[in-house]
Amino acid sequence: MDGFFQLDKRCVMNKFLQPQSVVLIGVSRQSGMGALNNLEMMLRFGYPGAVYVVHPKVPEILGHKTYASVGELPEVPDCAVISVGRDRVLPVFRDLAERGVRHVVVISQGFADADQHGTQLQHDLVAIAREYGVRVLGPNTMGIYNAFSRFSTAFIDLPRPQSPPPITVIAQTGVIQVGVESFTGEVGKAIDIGNGCDLDFVDVLEVLERDPQTRIIVLHMEGMQRGREFLEVAARVARIKPIVVFKTGRSRAGARAALSHTGSLVGEDAVFDAAFRRAGILRVRTMLELKAAVNGLLHWRDIAGPNLGVITATGACGIMTADACEDHGLQLAPFPESARGELENQRIAWHHLNNPVDIWPLGMVTGSFTDVLERAAIQLLQSDAVHSLLFITPTMASDLHANLELRPALEAIAAHNLQHKPLALWPYGDGIEAQRSALQGVPDLALFGSIDEAVMGLAALWRRRQAKDRLDAAAAAPPAARPKPQPAAAPSAPAKPGLLLGPAASRLLAEYGIPLVPEQLTTASDQAAAFAERHGYPVVLKVIAGDWLHKSDQGGVVLNLHDRDQLTAAYAKLGARFRRQVPGGTLDGILAQRQVSGRELLFGVSRDPHFGPLVVAGLGGIYTEVFRDVARALAPVTQSEALELLRSLQSFPLLEGVRGEAGVDLQSLAAILVKLSQLAEEHPEIEQLDLNPVIATATDCWAVDARIIVG
Amino acid sequence: MDGFFQLDKRCVMNKFLQPQSVVLIGVSRQSGMGALNNLEMMLRFGYPGAVYVVHPKVPEILGHKTYASVGELPEVPDCAVISVGRDRVLPVFRDLAERGVRHVVVISQGFADADQHGTQLQHDLVAIAREYGVRVLGPNTMGIYNAFSRFSTAFIDLPRPQSPPPITVIAQTGVIQVGVESFTGEVGKAIDIGNGCDLDFVDVLEVLERDPQTRIIVLHMEGMQRGREFLEVAARVARIKPIVVFKTGRSRAGARAALSHTGSLVGEDAVFDAAFRRAGILRVRTMLELKAAVNGLLHWRDIAGPNLGVITATGACGIMTADACEDHGLQLAPFPESARGELENQRIAWHHLNNPVDIWPLGMVTGSFTDVLERAAIQLLQSDAVHSLLFITPTMASDLHANLELRPALEAIAAHNLQHKPLALWPYGDGIEAQRSALQGVPDLALFGSIDEAVMGLAALWRRRQAKDRLDAAAAAPPAARPKPQPAAAPSAPAKPGLLLGPAASRLLAEYGIPLVPEQLTTASDQAAAFAERHGYPVVLKVIAGDWLHKSDQGGVVLNLHDRDQLTAAYAKLGARFRRQVPGGTLDGILAQRQVSGRELLFGVSRDPHFGPLVVAGLGGIYTEVFRDVARALAPVTQSEALELLRSLQSFPLLEGVRGEAGVDLQSLAAILVKLSQLAEEHPEIEQLDLNPVIATATDCWAVDARIIVG
Repeated sequence: MDGFFQLDKRCVMNKFLQPQSVVLIGVSRQSGMGALNNLEMMLRFGYPGAVYVVHPKVPEILGHKTYASVGELPEVPDCAVISVGRDRVLPVFRDLAERGVRHVVVISQGFADADQHGTQLQHDLVAIAREYGVRVLGPNTMGIYNAFSRFSTAFIDLPRPQSPPPITVIAQTGVIQVGVESFTGEVGKAIDIGNGCDLDFVDVLEVLERDPQTRIIVLHMEGMQRGREFLEVAARVARIKPIVVFKTGRSRAGARAALSHTGSLVGEDAVFDAAFRRAGILRVRTMLELKAAVNGLLHWRDIAGPNLGVITATGACGIMTADACEDHGLQLAPFPESARGELENQRIAWHHLNNPVDIWPLGMVTGSFTDVLERAAIQLLQSDAVHSLLFITPTMASDLHANLELRPALEAIAAHNLQHKPLALWPYGDGIEAQRSALQGVPDLALFGSIDEAVMGLAALWRRRQAKDRLDAAAAAPPAARPKPQPAAAPSAPAKPGLLLGPAASRLLAEYGIPLVPEQLTTASDQAAAFAERHGYPVVLKVIAGDWLHKSDQGGVVLNLHDRDQLTAAYAKLGARFRRQVPGGTLDGILAQRQVSGRELLFGVSRDPHFGPLVVAGLGGIYTEVFRDVARALAPVTQSEALELLRSLQSFPLLEGVRGEAGVDLQSLAAILVKLSQLAEEHPEIEQLDLNPVIATATDCWAVDARIIVG
Repeated sequence: MDGFFQLDKRCVMNKFLQPQSVVLIGVSRQSGMGALNNLEMMLRFGYPGAVYVVHPKVPEILGHKTYASVGELPEVPDCAVISVGRDRVLPVFRDLAERGVRHVVVISQGFADADQHGTQLQHDLVAIAREYGVRVLGPNTMGIYNAFSRFSTAFIDLPRPQSPPPITVIAQTGVIQVGVESFTGEVGKAIDIGNGCDLDFVDVLEVLERDPQTRIIVLHMEGMQRGREFLEVAARVARIKPIVVFKTGRSRAGARAALSHTGSLVGEDAVFDAAFRRAGILRVRTMLELKAAVNGLLHWRDIAGPNLGVITATGACGIMTADACEDHGLQLAPFPESARGELENQRIAWHHLNNPVDIWPLGMVTGSFTDVLERAAIQLLQSDAVHSLLFITPTMASDLHANLELRPALEAIAAHNLQHKPLALWPYGDGIEAQRSALQGVPDLALFGSIDEAVMGLAALWRRRQAKDRLDAAAAAPPAARPKPQPAAAPSAPAKPGLLLGPAASRLLAEYGIPLVPEQLTTASDQAAAFAERHGYPVVLKVIAGDWLHKSDQGGVVLNLHDRDQLTAAYAKLGARFRRQVPGGTLDGILAQRQVSGRELLFGVSRDPHFGPLVVAGLGGIYTEVFRDVARALAPVTQSEALELLRSLQSFPLLEGVRGEAGVDLQSLAAILVKLSQLAEEHPEIEQLDLNPVIATATDCWAVDARIIVG
């Protein structure tokens, strides 16, 4: 069944990506310069299938006979492309549906990307599509670009690469197709999902999993629907092919702009980080990083670690590379001592090699820079501690420097590169363009426009390697590693909407084994004293009475009760204070609580509109507020994911112990996060849950106060 | 005198930058491909002056008669260029000096950039130079590149721009000359100071101040000598011309690599930040940012604020621009409501404009994208709240899109741009290169290779504007604003080397009016009680006895003494404890100190090898350690600079007051920093000083403990 289902999905996408026949509605009568005639563009792009044009007024366009209506078409085309004004879209769409067309691209703008009326129109469009079983791409899209099948729905005259690279873009814009040079370099396919009223990231991603023409998947994303399904599919696909996401709208201003562009509801950006991490998706933050990452993924196979060997014609650029490595999470490999004898030259005995390897002096003294480059690279590649190489070399247009031609040396290096370690090259000088074409096809070699881009490319590959390892490990782990509800501990009934505090909240937490600081609701001083004898002093007393709930600022809390005398006095005082301040009020009781001290944290659960429940952890109080030192992960989390979450806090050293202070019990803390995440999964009615504080010591930890908002 | 001095310096630099005659020593006998013959390169570069070649073995090179020795030269050339092996440099150098040559470029490597012997050679070279009054550029340099005078000492065949731009580079490398495309674009002049054994950043910078061929100064810096002089000169020059610094070696690995490249001693990178800020120098962190900044400074005049107007053919890129603005410190300008009526079109009433201004739908409906672009730009330029514009437009090679030609629209926009607001353009599509040449010379317009680079360029101009304003304000401020030692309060005698603690440290701080928590060294309980009556309880008692100095972990400190009884008991206990733990030891006394509580900070003084005394401020304890939340400024600081320093702390909200807590007395805190900085200036023998903690409340602040290391 699953196989058939997948096949069916592939059929749907293929009707969009490589239709046998297509009908265009809304073609301009003009053609030539400035007409943006999508029929003209489709023909120029070399589309080999049958093209029909529906036009009510003119008998032919660009030599193509037109049909006055959809009903007159001689066959049911695989696919339709609508580009009429928004108010004429729905009737045309219904005509197509009735004629039996099941795959429609709606280029037209002015739907959820525009105003209230547009949102309604889009809603109605979807209703018709559902009624007839039509799949829709768009609206507000440039549609399909497929260099393999020579099919493009763009109204821009796009060049078509002779050998389409195995890169597929799924975007919420057409600009990646039009400005491909700036974003990814040439691509094989691009699908602009536009407003994504029907076909969305999940649909397309699922189909690309087994698409032999796709080796690298690039997502341009402004917002997200079906977050959990997306992550599930993405995590599966990312085990086979790298997925790079350029998620924009990460700033507040950017998120506002995204809302008006494709009507995307944009969640909190940090949640996307957590989600992409979970799915093993490689996030890039700028178009420069996108281009560098795609370039690396296209030309390299794999990378075993973060250690970079640098072979450079100038020491200055070695230093710049070291800086870039620190910026992007790589490091300089140790210089292999065995290479010293092979490379260093007695005529310049003062020139001690190191990584970055400054080879210019050796080139001067031996008379051949490229020869030294080759020898140095081969030496470095032999070291297991070198995981990739970056070459920094001059390349000049002048005939006086024709000896700097790099191809022979790089081919020799590639031939010695048996492990296919990534080779990066940043050439400088006025011969760059010539070099760029001369070096095409050298195995395992990618060229970059700057040191920073080269290092970003290598760093992306290393992040991809780590992400894939995590996905593979998660898939290989026994199912027990991911917590499942036990039949014996079935989730309790959903809580009622409202605010849950005090004992009511504690009960829910206790159900999940979340350790609560010992407490007891008492109605007499003796009870409280007995509690204290059982659990030990010091204790805290808190008035519990409806919404006058342990308000410390109203004097409803007394701390630091160290013995029975202090407790008895405080108990009496609290009772009197309540009766004085709330005459005639009902006192539910006085909560006696063991007073614990240790490192204070804040744990919580929140719910993202796209990705559902998240666990949140941070150091309490001002740390969270001032330093914004908070980490998030999508629920559920395993024990090791919870530990990783805690380690990602900037303040983690405080948990480990600084300045000789003892650290806290990390395993117990992580266990609370695991249980919280399970609770969040099983109680979808909980919108927010705060444990503030969670107090951790070297041996224990307890949630002290819980606050739960039920939706 | 100063005028003459400046003139003299200019004469020196001119002999290097545009000599009438030059002698080359160490020219290769080979020429042509791969020879790296600097005579050949100099002739190709078009040098019009007299060139002499000294060569002991061959009678002529490249048709130039050679001289067997320096002594045989027919005249004393303005400048000499040495490129022999390092062990032959000194004799040649001495010959030149004796012949009367006073300006020598030493290309040769292997000096302080290499080993101990090289460092000695460099030292000896400087000694000979001083003896004869010779100025040296290098060693380990590519030397001079001057497109104006057609003089280059490079051994690489560098292209020479027909119209040299007014950009001068001072670098510690030749790669910026060779790879100019990647770093700055074409330059007019470049001076590689190499190891900087004599001529350094200060020398060259001083001369550029009045150089009419220099409008923008770019520094590539790995390390620094004469830090304070550099800052003084730079702050003066930066009031007239922007100085952009690409300081490399900012990572730990980069700093290590820098040490071996030019033998530069590299200080702590954060100190460079503080120094550059003080001098109004614009720091860039990557080569991409360097190129963007120079591009902006070259094409734009000035910018009045951070508000960017974006006119884009695609909403997706508007979102990316919003993200980039947040990354680089710009913001989106408000959309001018007055423009709405002028631009919005009733045929697509759903299309509400905003900033970023997505003009594609308007272009579709009106039939001319460039016309809408022009109208939108002119509208936005009229708004005072728009400080700059970024255009994002497609540019296609296809003849079907020849109507997207931008020059007429951009010229019209420039003509309306009476305030010369910066105009940035990022074109995308396959017509970029054609556009790049077609748009040359449009006033106030700069083209960029990506959205991020465009925003980095604009952000650099805005930072330049702010830096210049600060420099101008500092220059205009009455001298009193910068603290000067008062004759009446002349600095005390230098402290003796060693560690200064307790009362000895307090005396020095008191001299500068730094408020210390009230304290008194007492020898009897009654004295301590009298102190407490005078200053109020609670008080702290601390044992003072040689190196057993108020060690709280040895029980030498008692806190929280709230009345006379508690004080008397503690006093007796401390005395007994000391006698028990240090039998026969000498008790200097017991320090009674008012116990204060409030927000704890850490203030200090440190001394940088390049830039001298710094004041340091951070929140105390774990904040400093875990969050590395520390700010630095070069001493001396004014009150407003001290406030700015405090504001730059990430934890500043804690000082201002969060969650309804009262803030602290910022003015008093800043005043302590001002006084500390004065102390640091006037006591150069102090290597380090820590006030830890400084305790601040809403009304007061006090230094509690001082620790001073005297060198």
